[in-house]
Amino acid sequence: MQFLTTARLNYELMNEATILASIKCMRTPGQTVLSEILSSDRPAEMTDLVHDMAHGTYTRINIHSPGPLSLQYSAQATPTHSLIAGASLTSPHPSTLPAELLPFIYPSRYCQSDRLREVAEEIAGNELSAFAKVSRIVDWIHQHISYAPGTTSEQDSATDILEKRSGVCRDFSHLAIALVRALSIPARYLTAYAAQLEPQDFHACFEAYLGEQWCLFDPTHLAPLNGIVRIASGHDASDTALASLYGDIVGSEVQVCCTSQSPLSPITQDELRQSKTAFVLG
Amino acid sequence: MQFLTTARLNYELMNEATILASIKCMRTPGQTVLSEILSSDRPAEMTDLVHDMAHGTYTRINIHSPGPLSLQYSAQATPTHSLIAGASLTSPHPSTLPAELLPFIYPSRYCQSDRLREVAEEIAGNELSAFAKVSRIVDWIHQHISYAPGTTSEQDSATDILEKRSGVCRDFSHLAIALVRALSIPARYLTAYAAQLEPQDFHACFEAYLGEQWCLFDPTHLAPLNGIVRIASGHDASDTALASLYGDIVGSEVQVCCTSQSPLSPITQDELRQSKTAFVLG
Amino acid sequence: MQFLTTARLNYELMNEATILASIKCMRTPGQTVLSEILSSDRPAEMTDLVHDMAHGTYTRINIHSPGPLSLQYSAQATPTHSLIAGASLTSPHPSTLPAELLPFIYPSRYCQSDRLREVAEEIAGNELSAFAKVSRIVDWIHQHISYAPGTTSEQDSATDILEKRSGVCRDFSHLAIALVRALSIPARYLTAYAAQLEPQDFHACFEAYLGEQWCLFDPTHLAPLNGIVRIASGHDASDTALASLYGDIVGSEVQVCCTSQSPLSPITQDELRQSKTAFVLG
Amino acid sequence: MQFLTTARLNYELMNEATILASIKCMRTPGQTVLSEILSSDRPAEMTDLVHDMAHGTYTRINIHSPGPLSLQYSAQATPTHSLIAGASLTSPHPSTLPAELLPFIYPSRYCQSDRLREVAEEIAGNELSAFAKVSRIVDWIHQHISYAPGTTSEQDSATDILEKRSGVCRDFSHLAIALVRALSIPARYLTAYAAQLEPQDFHACFEAYLGEQWCLFDPTHLAPLNGIVRIASGHDASDTALASLYGDIVGSEVQVCCTSQSPLSPITQDELRQSKTAFVLG
Repeated sequence: MQFLTTARLNYELMNEATILASIKCMRTPGQTVLSEILSSDRPAEMTDLVHDMAHGTYTRINIHSPGPLSLQYSAQATPTHSLIAGASLTSPHPSTLPAELLPFIYPSRYCQSDRLREVAEEIAGNELSAFAKVSRIVDWIHQHISYAPGTTSEQDSATDILEKRSGVCRDFSHLAIALVRALSIPARYLTAYAAQLEPQDFHACFEAYLGEQWCLFDPTHLAPLNGIVRIASGHDASDTALASLYGDIVGSEVQVCCTSQSPLSPITQDELRQSKTAFVLG
Repeated sequence: MQFLTTARLNYELMNEATILASIKCMRTPGQTVLSEILSSDRPAEMTDLVHDMAHGTYTRINIHSPGPLSLQYSAQATPTHSLIAGASLTSPHPSTLPAELLPFIYPSRYCQSDRLREVAEEIAGNELSAFAKVSRIVDWIHQHISYAPGTTSEQDSATDILEKRSGVCRDFSHLAIALVRALSIPARYLTAYAAQLEPQDFHACFEAYLGEQWCLFDPTHLAPLNGIVRIASGHDASDTALASLYGDIVGSEVQVCCTSQSPLSPITQDELRQSKTAFVLG
Repeated sequence: MQFLTTARLNYELMNEATILASIKCMRTPGQTVLSEILSSDRPAEMTDLVHDMAHGTYTRINIHSPGPLSLQYSAQATPTHSLIAGASLTSPHPSTLPAELLPFIYPSRYCQSDRLREVAEEIAGNELSAFAKVSRIVDWIHQHISYAPGTTSEQDSATDILEKRSGVCRDFSHLAIALVRALSIPARYLTAYAAQLEPQDFHACFEAYLGEQWCLFDPTHLAPLNGIVRIASGHDASDTALASLYGDIVGSEVQVCCTSQSPLSPITQDELRQSKTAFVLG
Repeated sequence: MQFLTTARLNYELMNEATILASIKCMRTPGQTVLSEILSSDRPAEMTDLVHDMAHGTYTRINIHSPGPLSLQYSAQATPTHSLIAGASLTSPHPSTLPAELLPFIYPSRYCQSDRLREVAEEIAGNELSAFAKVSRIVDWIHQHISYAPGTTSEQDSATDILEKRSGVCRDFSHLAIALVRALSIPARYLTAYAAQLEPQDFHACFEAYLGEQWCLFDPTHLAPLNGIVRIASGHDASDTALASLYGDIVGSEVQVCCTSQSPLSPITQDELRQSKTAFVLG
């Protein structure tokens, strides 16, 4: 399915400044990106960087004079996905875990899995399969954490969310990742455009490594999983930040839009949950 | 200079278990490793893994039966170093920072640089060069944090150390890294063998990216910098843990020894500080 | 019922020092104290203080020279109790709460009720009576927190325990109090001698104000409630510390013993729970 | 000197609710309150409560129907003060501290003095007198913490402020109290009306017990100390909250005004600091 994604980010610069933006749709074997344009309303030096952690594109934008700045991005992207029977999916034990997955069982800035072992085991209970454990965690978060913008800050991490019992998509995924990793199951963070997300904004979900692939979960239950267009994957929001600002610059407004170019029959987290199906984003 | 490094790690297994050990000396252009042996006192399946984050060797050790286990490592390694004038060394601004260094200005599990911007700026003051700023941070930590084993746990991070005002080498380096990154200067964690460290143990230091290379600092002032044999480099202790244990296993005892094979004329942190010299480990 | 309580506290002084001890059995209308003796093995200046918060006796002990010190306390005390039907006990609403109970719905050092409102409501669910809500909290703690000495420190508070899922009697009660106050139900901390507690030690429980009296709960389920001899009541461990030390002094060893002078037929927390009975300590 | 203080507090009730307000000027031997009126713009049941902790007046306001509510308070109060030479003022050692001061050396909800001993000693340095130590703490806070509304929340405590390096009057005083108590010097929190505070609002300061009286300090340096009209004294904001809300009610707006009825020649914190003078509020 093809999606049109657009984003407008507005800034106010008091001086020269640098933006590290991670808003371009990721190019993967399963996701083709067409006719992509990132532009600014005044001269800005833009360079695409890729580094080995975030598995996405960082664009460095250097602006040399003060004043307002507006960035405009639009792209057409065609994510693909597959559905597989989840119920018996296991996770590789650390005794056989491929080396490249190790970073995803370690704790990270916003996902202190080392501090949440007891809570994770309590929530996962005595489920046998890794898929069942991860599903229990996603369900628990959906039931116990309120989606409430404004209740958390960018410095809040999994342990804060567990206490506050509220947050936004970023927080839901951080908590999920911390709990999943606490069970030694690899988990990573994903930033995305999301069709049918209301209101439209950037979105965050997470993937757990089950069977032999990364399976996508949305603990907020807010966006159809087949409407997700991947921007970046990483440890957590620390290495997938949509925009990091350096210099005397403040962000003012963000407008995001993601629409499918043909009718989208939504595949929801709830539906996947009931049918014990795993969703694999291409 | 050539060093003989040895380590003995003893464990007690109640069942089969997996150890991910990162205790082998790193092989780099500047550090040759000779006659290396890692052995166990009973059958264990050992595989060397390298993953892209830790920049060192992980050895996966799977043991299939309960009982005591002793790992013995010994190697001869020849780290090299160079000394360069530090005073005017700058750090690449985010507007020009090479992509592969980006991960080292982000916050990580034990180095919450995003929460320590004000403190970092206060400590660094109005120093002009990045070297001078990092030196101020190293000095501040040396003066304000007490080296006191037993006062911190493996879950303590930079913000905890800042409050407790005490810790061990791991804690000193975590705090230093958090403060350095808070100034947008890349910093990474280093685990090591260390000659003339008293008492002998594994050691942790940190490197800041100054000029065009990683410069080594030891905020504990406990080990000569030219006695450091690098094991691994990473974000922090989360991806350079000396040994991560999976299964029903507990560690009992660690013995470490690092000796230079010819007399070592120590280059100390204090000396480097006074002469404003940067130490670059090969 | 009459109990014999004894405590021996050993210290090592490097210099003169002051101990504020709160180990004497409380004298209340419902608890008579007989033949009480607090003595030291060398000259010490002892003064009993009572202040309006702790509702117990503080003994100030000034010692003017270095060396070992041993304090020995013994008393005979006769706590009384009553049992009342709990199921429908309510708690006074803030609109009618007597002024002297206000301090017990506020957050305190180790009981940050202001941060646990969501968790408390989730645990208490839609129970109608205050007794039922408090019982749900006590049950939840008993089921979800492991009694594990050595896993917490004296600086840990309710929010830490909630994360660690383990602790000792002090921690269990701090978490219970924080959750109960978060529902605007007054709760206070109680230190005690406890017959049939294994192994013998000082104990901590908590009281919730239900109906028109303070009702005692032991979320650890470790001591019979009719074996409790009250020492002090307060906000939390901050104002009921068994011994606060000032000067160059460290504690070495504590021996506690509480025995009933006639056979004690234990009334357990579990039994009270099943019969929905409230236990009121005299 | 006589002051006119007024406060208007606006609320929106979705249902019946209770407000515990602590906004009346305190009546003390040194502060007379004249012509005091607390009224509401629609029927509300008001009762004055005094409890032994806050040392001020709590007014319980029960409102039985939904809708907007406006409370209006006005009073004339005549605080007095004295100035005494501070330099050599000491603080009673715990070995002689009067019992009623004990609660003010214990940690409390927002002032975790038990966690800040090392930081406090570092800041106070080797000053000899308690006055000099407290002054060093007040100076340090004034220099290192930015006054920045909006950077902290009502759940932030002394340890948070120390990390964030910013806050409002409440936060400045919490940090000061925690540090002062960490040195075993009694400290308490004070809420107030404050003439010449810009912009006008409720204010918070703190008092340390030096010599044989409570001495007032304003670590924000924002209000003349002789323009302070005391509302309440307590452990911290937990027992001196200006308004605690119970029920389905939210606050909307607060307007405060405090004016001296004859010209006020301001006595500033900075002036007191330079002249090493202690300010004692009557």
